[in-house]
Amino acid sequence: VTSVTNGGGQTAVSTKLDPTATLSARARRVGAAYAGPGAGSDVPVGERPPVAFTAGLPDPAIHPTREILEATAAVLASDADGALQYGGAQGFAGLREWLAAHWSTVDGLPLTADHFTLTNGAAGALANVCDTYLNDGDAVIVEEFSFPGSVRAIRAATPHVRTVPVDGDGLDVDALASLLQRLDRAGTPARMLYTIPTFQNPTGSTLDADRRRELVELCARHRVLIVEDAAYAELPFHDGLPASLYSLTGGANVVRIGTASKIVAPGLRVGWCQAAPEVIGALVATRPDMGTSPLTHRVVAELATSGFLDRHIVQAREHYAHKSRIMLEALTRHCGEVASWNDPDGGFFVWATLADSIDPSRLAALTAEEGVSYVGGQVFVSDAEPESTAWRHWTPGESRYLRLAFSYVAESSIAEGIARLGRALDRARR
Amino acid sequence: VTSVTNGGGQTAVSTKLDPTATLSARARRVGAAYAGPGAGSDVPVGERPPVAFTAGLPDPAIHPTREILEATAAVLASDADGALQYGGAQGFAGLREWLAAHWSTVDGLPLTADHFTLTNGAAGALANVCDTYLNDGDAVIVEEFSFPGSVRAIRAATPHVRTVPVDGDGLDVDALASLLQRLDRAGTPARMLYTIPTFQNPTGSTLDADRRRELVELCARHRVLIVEDAAYAELPFHDGLPASLYSLTGGANVVRIGTASKIVAPGLRVGWCQAAPEVIGALVATRPDMGTSPLTHRVVAELATSGFLDRHIVQAREHYAHKSRIMLEALTRHCGEVASWNDPDGGFFVWATLADSIDPSRLAALTAEEGVSYVGGQVFVSDAEPESTAWRHWTPGESRYLRLAFSYVAESSIAEGIARLGRALDRARR
Repeated sequence: VTSVTNGGGQTAVSTKLDPTATLSARARRVGAAYAGPGAGSDVPVGERPPVAFTAGLPDPAIHPTREILEATAAVLASDADGALQYGGAQGFAGLREWLAAHWSTVDGLPLTADHFTLTNGAAGALANVCDTYLNDGDAVIVEEFSFPGSVRAIRAATPHVRTVPVDGDGLDVDALASLLQRLDRAGTPARMLYTIPTFQNPTGSTLDADRRRELVELCARHRVLIVEDAAYAELPFHDGLPASLYSLTGGANVVRIGTASKIVAPGLRVGWCQAAPEVIGALVATRPDMGTSPLTHRVVAELATSGFLDRHIVQAREHYAHKSRIMLEALTRHCGEVASWNDPDGGFFVWATLADSIDPSRLAALTAEEGVSYVGGQVFVSDAEPESTAWRHWTPGESRYLRLAFSYVAESSIAEGIARLGRALDRARR
Repeated sequence: VTSVTNGGGQTAVSTKLDPTATLSARARRVGAAYAGPGAGSDVPVGERPPVAFTAGLPDPAIHPTREILEATAAVLASDADGALQYGGAQGFAGLREWLAAHWSTVDGLPLTADHFTLTNGAAGALANVCDTYLNDGDAVIVEEFSFPGSVRAIRAATPHVRTVPVDGDGLDVDALASLLQRLDRAGTPARMLYTIPTFQNPTGSTLDADRRRELVELCARHRVLIVEDAAYAELPFHDGLPASLYSLTGGANVVRIGTASKIVAPGLRVGWCQAAPEVIGALVATRPDMGTSPLTHRVVAELATSGFLDRHIVQAREHYAHKSRIMLEALTRHCGEVASWNDPDGGFFVWATLADSIDPSRLAALTAEEGVSYVGGQVFVSDAEPESTAWRHWTPGESRYLRLAFSYVAESSIAEGIARLGRALDRARR
């Protein structure tokens, strides 16, 4: 092998920069990298308790591994050059066409491939929207409990993150109305609302239909761009859920974020923005990254156009609905006296609230003893300082709220894990 | 299939935002998306001339398609869960370990997996560095002719892009010294130097060893972070090339950007930063995207650890060296009277300079007639307004410089394409 350099002949440099003293304002604001639930390494292996309800990940038991390999083979046989060269910033047209047909049916709108751009997962989609529409200093509104990875992406663009409460019916629209008014009066109008209206992370709640209508009207009146994170929206447990914010407005003022992470696999890193074509044009124009993998785009497109994906989504809905029922039944049996919880309409999460008789910090220690884990509510507090959210995942003792993910844990361990939680709760009574 | 929404029942919104009037400063600065050479759609299919020297892409004739599929199968058989879940922001440790071993040997430095973070190609690496170390308003220095995609990424972070000339031996270090001094005196010291020192895009030139030593010393004295884009550095055509800037400094003050795009395939979107571990920590902490694909990371790692990649790189060097020789011989035969050019030591490009007797705008029209294309030098002018660089790829008539890529064009077409260029040159004499 030809060697490029000689190596070894180092030149002493007179001044060494301190790489931590020269960080940008953006880098300082986001603090440490998000390494919590969903980041892939959220349960340190050496400390993994017997039953972990921490990971907001899809269940590897239903990963379509064989189908992904078959799709890869089909793509490389039919279009290797398209899959292996650069694919352009907007992403593979074939997948955008499938998304357009799929969401046209669901949303009742005439969508085209130009309504979509493909991104590095939902996280890449949100970063693209923030880069395109936020200036440093702009006010952004998020739910008081939200996904910390998303809040970090917003905080990278601007430090002014404001929150509104969220309850069992989703975001509190009256509180939103008064916050928007206060921000307008203060001369710092909100530029963007980031919301997860369907099967919210972490609360599992779904914004009800009346609130949805009020929300889109409020945001239009106050000239606020709505970013609708629909990461879990393909996983309802029953019919009759409310229309998307995107479909309610016909797409005006809304960027909807979607992802294949929950319905195919996170490791393909295929997400997207759905928006009016002129918004998509701006998003594509702003991104600096030459596009994400045209190979993984084509793998998802192959799974979709072959009909497999629709069948797989049905299976995934039934699978997660079943796991949620196991968790809810076990909660009723073991925890009903000292906690309450929502009954999610879909997604990955149950959000439990401890009775006043429970000492949250004692519970944290006792669940470790019993061999069960969860994510404490303090991890999801959107207006906390970044430093405090980034490193408190493993001291879930300061909140009355627990996020219990039923998605990743083995189905056969759920009942046992909740029984352990019940024992810890009994022991944590004041 | 369960339907999530009813659709159709749209709510009229009172105010529709103008998505182009609300763009961020960052979005405005970068203007239209980079869609030129290397972006994947640089030669509009309907207008594709018979012989295109435009695309700075690897040759699909040597894409390791079969090996990529075999590696995918091996990865999914042995580590499907690792490949299909989130992989963390820093990227697959197995690939970072291989990179550390490989570059330790080349650079003569004791590198570890902590000296690397995996990114969405070299473009994602540069964006990550800019986000982490640049504030809006910071001055950044680039070569006067450079890769427009990189200049866009820098301009997204800060509008203050300054240039230094580049010649056959790379960046002019004397000009750099005086620019650094002028910027210091003006109270706007440079924060970063972005350079492609080896087989530069577009000029094909390589920074010589003396200049390298002066450059790293100058940058250290002026406290300038060096971003060394090594996208082509694995493709030398002979031994004895100068040491990397990274190895010269032992890694102090340098972030080296690498990519699998030129040695495996761009479509995997696997790139990396190589830097001191504390710099890598800051880069990982700042990125908002939950990491890139752990599947494609593992595919590259499988190709590398199996020994295939080393053999493939040797083959690629010989392949591109052979293609460059064909181009150079044809240039001597057909264009020697009216143009001069460099003899690249590696990479993808020959950079030709027209004699004064040639009218560049006539040449542009005549090459279209003759059926050959190239990228005019004006596309690579780093200090041009973004609007002017983004949309002028197809009017290459305003520069005395031509970038002729020998990488992507079929080997059997090179001689004929240069013969056509020679005929066009003869006809374009004033």
